[in-house]
Amino acid sequence: MVDLGPYSNYRLTVRLELANTPGIFARVAALLADEGANLGAVDIVSATTTHMVRDVTFDVRNETHGEKVLARLNALPDVTVLSASDRIFLLHLGGKIRVEGKIPINTRNILSMVYTPGVGRVSQAIARDKSKVYAFTSKSNSVAVVTDGSAVLGLGNLGPEAALPVMEGKVMLFKELAGIDAWPLCLNTQDPDEIVRIVQGIAPGFGAINLEDISAPRCFDIERRLKASLDVPVMHDDQHGTAVVILAALTNALLVTGKQIEDIRVVVNGLGAAGTACCRMLLAAGVSHLLGCDQEGIILSGSPEQLHACRTDLATCITRAAPTGTLRDALKGADVFIGLSVGNILVAEDLELMAPERIVFAMANPDPEVSPELAASHCRIFATGRSDFPNQINNALAFPGIFRGALDVQAKEINEIMKLAAAKAIAEVIPPSALSEDYIIPSLFDKTVVPQVARAVATAARDSGVARRRMPGTASSSAE
Amino acid sequence: MVDLGPYSNYRLTVRLELANTPGIFARVAALLADEGANLGAVDIVSATTTHMVRDVTFDVRNETHGEKVLARLNALPDVTVLSASDRIFLLHLGGKIRVEGKIPINTRNILSMVYTPGVGRVSQAIARDKSKVYAFTSKSNSVAVVTDGSAVLGLGNLGPEAALPVMEGKVMLFKELAGIDAWPLCLNTQDPDEIVRIVQGIAPGFGAINLEDISAPRCFDIERRLKASLDVPVMHDDQHGTAVVILAALTNALLVTGKQIEDIRVVVNGLGAAGTACCRMLLAAGVSHLLGCDQEGIILSGSPEQLHACRTDLATCITRAAPTGTLRDALKGADVFIGLSVGNILVAEDLELMAPERIVFAMANPDPEVSPELAASHCRIFATGRSDFPNQINNALAFPGIFRGALDVQAKEINEIMKLAAAKAIAEVIPPSALSEDYIIPSLFDKTVVPQVARAVATAARDSGVARRRMPGTASSSAE
Repeated sequence: MVDLGPYSNYRLTVRLELANTPGIFARVAALLADEGANLGAVDIVSATTTHMVRDVTFDVRNETHGEKVLARLNALPDVTVLSASDRIFLLHLGGKIRVEGKIPINTRNILSMVYTPGVGRVSQAIARDKSKVYAFTSKSNSVAVVTDGSAVLGLGNLGPEAALPVMEGKVMLFKELAGIDAWPLCLNTQDPDEIVRIVQGIAPGFGAINLEDISAPRCFDIERRLKASLDVPVMHDDQHGTAVVILAALTNALLVTGKQIEDIRVVVNGLGAAGTACCRMLLAAGVSHLLGCDQEGIILSGSPEQLHACRTDLATCITRAAPTGTLRDALKGADVFIGLSVGNILVAEDLELMAPERIVFAMANPDPEVSPELAASHCRIFATGRSDFPNQINNALAFPGIFRGALDVQAKEINEIMKLAAAKAIAEVIPPSALSEDYIIPSLFDKTVVPQVARAVATAARDSGVARRRMPGTASSSAE
Repeated sequence: MVDLGPYSNYRLTVRLELANTPGIFARVAALLADEGANLGAVDIVSATTTHMVRDVTFDVRNETHGEKVLARLNALPDVTVLSASDRIFLLHLGGKIRVEGKIPINTRNILSMVYTPGVGRVSQAIARDKSKVYAFTSKSNSVAVVTDGSAVLGLGNLGPEAALPVMEGKVMLFKELAGIDAWPLCLNTQDPDEIVRIVQGIAPGFGAINLEDISAPRCFDIERRLKASLDVPVMHDDQHGTAVVILAALTNALLVTGKQIEDIRVVVNGLGAAGTACCRMLLAAGVSHLLGCDQEGIILSGSPEQLHACRTDLATCITRAAPTGTLRDALKGADVFIGLSVGNILVAEDLELMAPERIVFAMANPDPEVSPELAASHCRIFATGRSDFPNQINNALAFPGIFRGALDVQAKEINEIMKLAAAKAIAEVIPPSALSEDYIIPSLFDKTVVPQVARAVATAARDSGVARRRMPGTASSSAE
């Protein structure tokens, strides 16, 4: 079994063949101590009169350090490194997800009901009335997690095979947090036309489509075309999941600081998939003063009326060729900074350009736009995407409940009203009396988040006319 | 819970509201007795002083009969049918398959290993060496079950939604019999070019592709193009699964009758997906005398040399426009009849045209080509696709072990050598001493079938040079 003890990103288990003479293992231990590699479990695999095989577990600082330690171990006299593995890779052996039948097929009777000939009656019922596919198949609870591997985490264009472990992780979260049966589809094309056609092609069996890790700007067009052509929800989570959680965090941050959403001046830095969706969501939620920046400077601005008008097609407010100022110009007097760009582009003192009681969300991964250790004392509220600081803004707070709510009412789409409802529900998980500078967003492991978000999203779907099914969360009691 | 008692294709559970007065239920019971509807369980759901709600379960003959019984119940004074459902549909509520994570995500530590940031290291390792996708993802054990819904069971072109319950049943069998994680993909196109492109598109995440219920002749071209372009196994089960099991049954039937495969005269009736594949498989296995018929008569024939030459492209031996005789002409002196066509096209006496010690496989569903009750006494060995007679030829004997073996060695394809090995392994599950006229093929529930077939297929893959991995069935012991 895999050891699931305290987390180290680089814990190695190494199988060593040692000459069976006294003092050999002491030399191994001394070498590890010399390298600062914390020694963990030691097991004997086999032993003869001349040799011993041992599994030795220890922590290293990073991959390079691990390679150095292995090379030094191998260079010890009478020591051979037979194999080396580390815990993260062990956890991934054979993949992280599996499929199960809900009923064991252990008799011929069961077989003839779940497969031929009995299943034929169900097929014929669905052929007569296609809407019955929701009642009698896995479509009602399934989501396709689709990627082309073009923007895997923050690591870039790694391709479909390398994206698969990430999509499997997403599938695990769908199940663990929302009880949804998702399956990863990693596409071997990055052509938007082909992606659109493939997703349209596989859509009949899925209740919703989660697009994931598709790079901007292709992701905008792909999502728009799929939303327009499919009758099930399609959501690119990198855009909207992130935007929803940021709005939730901002909602509570404003409660803490006593500011009103229509008055605040907001700067969004980084106008990729997440940044663009974040701007649209903020405008939909009532923000009137917004500046958007990329590495050239301020490229998104306008009067409240102009911004409101371009909300659904942000491109009309973007002047990519002619920035109207620098990021530091934008920060002057701003109440809120939202970074969805790259690490360490601001120093803590830059934050002093902002208005008092400032709110800073520095979301770049793994290093935030401004160093958390230094920034915290320069703002009223500080949040990142990291789990090792307070206020972690994580899109896993949004997508499970959004899809759960959409599936519960067999929604035809996920619209802006549903996303705004999700943000409000996430924010409201924390009672106002419990809000503080360090607690504006609930934990990913708070069991109340998903049901509350799902209920809000289902209600919003019904109210906005995109629900096929009236009552969320109740199983249909009659068949045929 | 769903009742999983003895099988009836048409068992209804009906919720009735009855006036709470004596004698009402007796009238219900009398009506059911009058209709010959066997009364099963009776439960009280709720009761007031004026009314009772009861769930009543009974068997009917077919859907029409069920509707008639419901109408008569509803017409009884003081009786209202609140809802009616039947067992097969109840079993299908919400679908028959689900996805599970292999590791519970219950701590932040686990989350950071199976998802960001830890998973990023696995993605980068695969990006550096794509072959590692087999070690660290679900690709190693996953099969896409792909259909376009054009030939669902024997029911015709019902479309992708109606095909989904069948594909879910197939997914259940993959798991139950072979431990394989399959997922259904029901495509909303029946255009071969689009099907090919979609399957190519989703291939990176799957270890193999099972094409299912795609109508002939489109299935031949689709399979051929996918086999040529993908580096994972592609198999249209309607063709090859059936052919493999027929060859296995024939192998044992020949042992029972003492005939040799190179001497026998075989008639295959029905040259659709299964019939064509069956002819190719028989020729590959050594059959030299073969006549193929469709509804026009004999359209496939040739000298042993001609037949052997056209084995991989059967079309060159088929003279669709000019039949050279009738099915009854073909039967004269034949040792083996294999029907893959439609029910009741032969009478038992037709079988007397054949040679003595004749072998008849009448595979049409639900009614075989010749009535089983009458045919059995006119041949030495008789087999069907039905579970209510001895010698059931069921492709679920082949596909689980074939795919298991192919996945175990990370095969690049499923070739003829592997299929021949599968047929031989299925046949050999029954020891020669146990063979008899009524026992030429093992049971679907015989636990030794899949491991034996898988081992034979894996060995054949290795021997024919299409295996990526040397040892089947052993997990890789080192990571990274």
